[in-house]
Amino acid sequence: MPYWLPVAIGVVAGALSTVSFAPQVLKAWREGDTAAISLRMYIVTVIAFVMWIVYGVMIGSLPIIIFNALSLIMSGSILMMKIRNGPDG
Amino acid sequence: MPYWLPVAIGVVAGALSTVSFAPQVLKAWREGDTAAISLRMYIVTVIAFVMWIVYGVMIGSLPIIIFNALSLIMSGSILMMKIRNGPDG
Repeated sequence: MPYWLPVAIGVVAGALSTVSFAPQVLKAWREGDTAAISLRMYIVTVIAFVMWIVYGVMIGSLPIIIFNALSLIMSGSILMMKIRNGPDG
Repeated sequence: MPYWLPVAIGVVAGALSTVSFAPQVLKAWREGDTAAISLRMYIVTVIAFVMWIVYGVMIGSLPIIIFNALSLIMSGSILMMKIRNGPDG
């Protein structure tokens, strides 16, 4: 197995994990509907991304910091839309 | 900084990332409402978790395999509920 293959798979997996939030941000923004979205999921998700950033700083990994900072921004915006719209919004 | 602190932060961040899906699975299951949930988000998320599992196998990391397998099961069940309910469901 080429030495670079695991690194490439990890980078693509990380990028997909981050990019995956984009369609949900756009859908919630366009439709203004967040009723089916779980508030608790996004509270826990935001906390997790803050901890991943702390982890990235501790081990000095810029990719982990950058990917998780982008994920924090997107999941944080979904959380804010959910809070703004209220439980049934 | 104690040597174990980054490992502890990473494990907690990983566990939170996985656990975060549970409230969304329960909410979608109980309410049968997935209208506001983005189909594209969960298609990309499921692909990302498959790739994280491949990455975990390649580097021989059981925690990465286990966390991402659990995340795949939960995000996969949200995806299936979304597909079953249809775009407006």
